[in-house]
Amino acid sequence: MNLRGVGRVLGFLLLVTSCSLLLPLLVDLLYGEGDWEVFLLTAVGGALVGGCLMWLGHTRPALRHREGFAIVTLGWIAVGLLGAVPFLGTGVIPGPIDAVFESISGFTTTGSTIMTDIEGVAANHHAVIFWRSLIQWLGGMGIVVLALAILPLLGVGGMQLFRAEAPGPSPDRLTSRISATARLLWGVYVLITGMEVLALATIGGMPIFDSVCHALTTMATGGFSTLDSSVGGFRSGAVEWIITVFMFIAGVNFSLHYLALRGRLAVYGRDDEFRFYALVIVGATVLVSATLWPVHLFGGFEPTVRAAAFQVVSIATTTGYGTADYVLWPPFTHMILLLLMTVGGCAGSTGGGIKMMRVLLLLKHAHVEVQKLLHPRAVYTLWFNERPVTPALATNVLGFFMLFMVVFVAGTLLLTLAGRDIVTSVGAVAATLGNIGPGLGDVGPTCNYSFMSIAEKWLLMLLMLIGRLELYTVLILFMPATWRKI
Amino acid sequence: MNLRGVGRVLGFLLLVTSCSLLLPLLVDLLYGEGDWEVFLLTAVGGALVGGCLMWLGHTRPALRHREGFAIVTLGWIAVGLLGAVPFLGTGVIPGPIDAVFESISGFTTTGSTIMTDIEGVAANHHAVIFWRSLIQWLGGMGIVVLALAILPLLGVGGMQLFRAEAPGPSPDRLTSRISATARLLWGVYVLITGMEVLALATIGGMPIFDSVCHALTTMATGGFSTLDSSVGGFRSGAVEWIITVFMFIAGVNFSLHYLALRGRLAVYGRDDEFRFYALVIVGATVLVSATLWPVHLFGGFEPTVRAAAFQVVSIATTTGYGTADYVLWPPFTHMILLLLMTVGGCAGSTGGGIKMMRVLLLLKHAHVEVQKLLHPRAVYTLWFNERPVTPALATNVLGFFMLFMVVFVAGTLLLTLAGRDIVTSVGAVAATLGNIGPGLGDVGPTCNYSFMSIAEKWLLMLLMLIGRLELYTVLILFMPATWRKI
Repeated sequence: MNLRGVGRVLGFLLLVTSCSLLLPLLVDLLYGEGDWEVFLLTAVGGALVGGCLMWLGHTRPALRHREGFAIVTLGWIAVGLLGAVPFLGTGVIPGPIDAVFESISGFTTTGSTIMTDIEGVAANHHAVIFWRSLIQWLGGMGIVVLALAILPLLGVGGMQLFRAEAPGPSPDRLTSRISATARLLWGVYVLITGMEVLALATIGGMPIFDSVCHALTTMATGGFSTLDSSVGGFRSGAVEWIITVFMFIAGVNFSLHYLALRGRLAVYGRDDEFRFYALVIVGATVLVSATLWPVHLFGGFEPTVRAAAFQVVSIATTTGYGTADYVLWPPFTHMILLLLMTVGGCAGSTGGGIKMMRVLLLLKHAHVEVQKLLHPRAVYTLWFNERPVTPALATNVLGFFMLFMVVFVAGTLLLTLAGRDIVTSVGAVAATLGNIGPGLGDVGPTCNYSFMSIAEKWLLMLLMLIGRLELYTVLILFMPATWRKI
Repeated sequence: MNLRGVGRVLGFLLLVTSCSLLLPLLVDLLYGEGDWEVFLLTAVGGALVGGCLMWLGHTRPALRHREGFAIVTLGWIAVGLLGAVPFLGTGVIPGPIDAVFESISGFTTTGSTIMTDIEGVAANHHAVIFWRSLIQWLGGMGIVVLALAILPLLGVGGMQLFRAEAPGPSPDRLTSRISATARLLWGVYVLITGMEVLALATIGGMPIFDSVCHALTTMATGGFSTLDSSVGGFRSGAVEWIITVFMFIAGVNFSLHYLALRGRLAVYGRDDEFRFYALVIVGATVLVSATLWPVHLFGGFEPTVRAAAFQVVSIATTTGYGTADYVLWPPFTHMILLLLMTVGGCAGSTGGGIKMMRVLLLLKHAHVEVQKLLHPRAVYTLWFNERPVTPALATNVLGFFMLFMVVFVAGTLLLTLAGRDIVTSVGAVAATLGNIGPGLGDVGPTCNYSFMSIAEKWLLMLLMLIGRLELYTVLILFMPATWRKI
């Protein structure tokens, strides 16, 4: 392991995050709530540590695969720790573990919260609430770059399907290629976020502060809200529809948005994953609406469809906003939401979970296997976006799915070991591993994670990281071979 | 589809089942309870239908893969329907759907029952209770032959690993090879069942009728008991330990038993699947015992370990006997039992579920995929029993797992759609698809399936068949291509 190379990149990440701390500092000065010193000290401290790491680090020898994995995981942990400092320093979250939980939940765009009185905090600490939203947005940006620029080069779980160029990974060119892709995606991300702020503030009639915060967490499919009752608290159909649309957009592969913004709108219709994603969302919305209709929980056709669409998109994109307490809905809707939780958004979006692309490939694979039984001598090829999927790539995706199940089961086992009932355990693991936020049972949409024990919180944080960084990236660091000298 | 060829084999299966109806007929004459006429009429009727089918059928042209799948599925349905007649005819089960449910649950060795007063029936209808046990035993025998002689030739879900000879399937030799393997396994099965009858009647001190019935359903990992309170009702530690041991034996690949009985005892230790199976059973027993110990549900060390071992083996081998109401145990044990349910016994045993062999291969596969990330250019081979597993076989097993998940999820969705809560739905699907019998929630070990609606019963029957016949065999018949003329 080239620790000095890893340290250099980590230092750079800390430096960038420290700079971003100046934004909530400005927000605080605007509201005059006296939190600016905390943000300034955190920024200076973070920049100092980051600077030292960069100074101590080296770029030679070149970074290899294992360094790539270490940078990604340790990077998320490092910025997660830095992000927790303002919560502690302002006294908004008194416990250090709770502060780290909130920060990791933010940077991984999970949205599970331990805060019990968000509105009380928002009244006196606008900068902290803004920072809480901003870390989700930064995390979301990081994920898009990770999925579309870094993971394809590292060969993780089928992300190779999105490799722009054909040739294999050449470690020394890693950084230059990554930064080129990152710049393009960054622009797209900022643009769409701006559009949502505008839509919420004008059409939705939302206060500008809330509009900005919600736009940041929508685009990150993060789900932190400025209200305890989440988006439902605004009691506005327009707000809910706008957020539904932008959550849907945030759940799409951002390279498609990039191409569409450059005029090639047809890319959506030609993309296998997007079509599957749209089909799943529409299908689930219809099913949930049809199940809710006879129960008369909502007062009419539009409110029923709106509630169904909002919750389906919120869960499927792993955002986790709530407008209704779906725990009270019929059990059939729970199963649909639980399934959507595990599937997650598209690869290359800010959404979590297994990803639409992988589930689609797995279903295609199962179909091919059935056909092989009828025609054992025939040769079948898996197709994805009009290109054949190599068997090696297919087993790569299948391995990912298997590993996801193993982690899911292990997490649930540990939570039941701590005495939680099965529904809460499955819900909490699905919600954190899938980076959704709220789960089922005791961690349902009207609840929070504050009652959990310290050990449980650490476990859930680990699950957030594992889920967010596509499993392998984190798990590989637990293998002794990763740290062995060659 | 060569329907005449299929019909001929189905006719033969009906003829054999009709002959086996003479056994409960003898039991009835012994007890003089007046049910013999029903068994005689059913046997004659079954033989007539079977005979007609054989007479109408042809052996030419040779049977191909699709006919193989049709024979297996339709064969199980046909004997299932025939087996239901005595339940109806004697009036023990008044409803035709309930009678078919009990019969299908028997032939698939599931053990889910709709009978609410087994002991009341046993007092006046010994022959019916004996028949109920016998159909499980026949089904179990059928499964071993299916898994070790038929499926390897049809190439279903990794069963090829147990193909005795190297060359590919040659359809015309199908029948001769199957019957040779079947004869050997038949002998092993009878022998071990006899040993259990002996052990239960002598060491266990169980009445001979109950000993025979329990031996039949233990070896089939079926789980039908002669008491409403299942094996726990005998209140005998010796009985519980004996049944635990024989359930463990029934969960092992029968070709290993065959080799062991011919003196090659070392085969167990050398078999990857057996070692994994033993490890899982011992590990789960230790974990469950350790969880039960602090709760003080059982009065001491031996009763605690006995209850844990019995339940673990009963669930892992998918037998489904009960000695305790595990629904009252801590949630951690539920998760362990739920996992064991899905994994199931060894391939080539009478146990259901995904099978140990497949889970082991999937875990090995996930491990290889992680290693590939570190050394992208290295070539890895999956090993099973000291032989390399071809990539085609590996994807075959992965496809099976994927399909299992799809069926599992679809079944659960349908049950929640019928209004069942999630725990009951998941439990019922796991219990029927895995051929265990009792599930969780409302279908826990102290409950039965009589309260379910007709539609739910049909669904669960379908799941029993799909699970029992290794998914593909049933699902392939739903594909239009299977019925198309070539």
